[in-house]
Amino acid sequence: MASSDHPYVPSDLKLPGYVPLSFSQSQILVPYIVSSIVVLAAVWVLSGRSPKLSKMDRLLMCWWTFTGLTHIIVEGYFAFVPDFFKKKTPFYLAELWKEYSKGDSRYVGRHSAVVALEGFTAAVEGPACFLAVYAVASSKSYSYILQFAICLGQLYGCVIYFGTAYLEGDNYSVSPFYYWAYYIIANSFWIVIPTLIAIRSWKKIVTPSESAKKTKRKAK
Amino acid sequence: MASSDHPYVPSDLKLPGYVPLSFSQSQILVPYIVSSIVVLAAVWVLSGRSPKLSKMDRLLMCWWTFTGLTHIIVEGYFAFVPDFFKKKTPFYLAELWKEYSKGDSRYVGRHSAVVALEGFTAAVEGPACFLAVYAVASSKSYSYILQFAICLGQLYGCVIYFGTAYLEGDNYSVSPFYYWAYYIIANSFWIVIPTLIAIRSWKKIVTPSESAKKTKRKAK
Repeated sequence: MASSDHPYVPSDLKLPGYVPLSFSQSQILVPYIVSSIVVLAAVWVLSGRSPKLSKMDRLLMCWWTFTGLTHIIVEGYFAFVPDFFKKKTPFYLAELWKEYSKGDSRYVGRHSAVVALEGFTAAVEGPACFLAVYAVASSKSYSYILQFAICLGQLYGCVIYFGTAYLEGDNYSVSPFYYWAYYIIANSFWIVIPTLIAIRSWKKIVTPSESAKKTKRKAK
Repeated sequence: MASSDHPYVPSDLKLPGYVPLSFSQSQILVPYIVSSIVVLAAVWVLSGRSPKLSKMDRLLMCWWTFTGLTHIIVEGYFAFVPDFFKKKTPFYLAELWKEYSKGDSRYVGRHSAVVALEGFTAAVEGPACFLAVYAVASSKSYSYILQFAICLGQLYGCVIYFGTAYLEGDNYSVSPFYYWAYYIIANSFWIVIPTLIAIRSWKKIVTPSESAKKTKRKAK
């Protein structure tokens, strides 16, 4: 197969051994969305059995489980299987990254900044997300600082991710549809949610808790 | 001037308009080291006038002032003056980055990951360092979480900085001397010190302070 036989932008991108997508867009998106909903629902229901967990705690556990699984399984596969686009037997995760590459061809092109940040996200932040689920569930004293740390890592990843593309001319999408749907909208969850959790964690750390205030009042 | 007329590695790096270094290594390193010592000494002496500041507080103020100035002035110049290597009139900061590029030619070559992380470091982390100096000096409640956040940013920057070079074959130094002196040893300060401060900040946030413990004991 000639190296130009791929659908990505820029067209002079060299992808020797590239095997075309064999899954349709819905065969890729539906399993991801459905399994995400199943995971979120399962964590919501299971965490509801504990009377000491607030609704916010349970929402946070849902998010950390979902994003942890995404980091480890989906992004981990990309980071540590460099030849995913050459696989001759269709495999779901390889197909997913070939589809996503329509919005950002740096994935199929293995851009060093993308591989570095995805590798770190999968190997360090992914496991940290599961520690965050445990920390929230057991009200550990390090719960807020851990969540804050993971959020900053995710946000710094976004700065590098979008910053490098911008500096290189932002020309990695096959069309405005894929640019907006995959590159902007799909990634925006990892900007908005970590920002909200980081702000909440910062406030929780800086502001004395209600119980501490009560203790202080008693002591007076 | 032909584009190959530069001392950097790889030799096929294109640097149209490159103007050779006119400062010697000592003309570049001595002013940086001397001005750093002057800054550190000035902050140490000035902060010593406040009896409520511990020696650790004063050391932290020295570090945050030094690293903040480095981020804003030195790294800010690199990030926001793209044509620094074409300047015909010798200018100290341009000479400094042309010299440092002997250890990592991605600076003179304006590698997108390096420009993205240096831009963020200069524009966001630099000012945050000065907020940290103020926060430590005035014992603000957000002092530890702010220092923790800046340290994580510096460490994440190092992950991307070394990670991208490693993935690209780590071939950006003119010799092992420059590789070790500039690329490894000079940068190691921004790995070791942020790691130590991040661990200390984490512990301070997670462990209840002595005064809080006393309050609790009184309340019992």
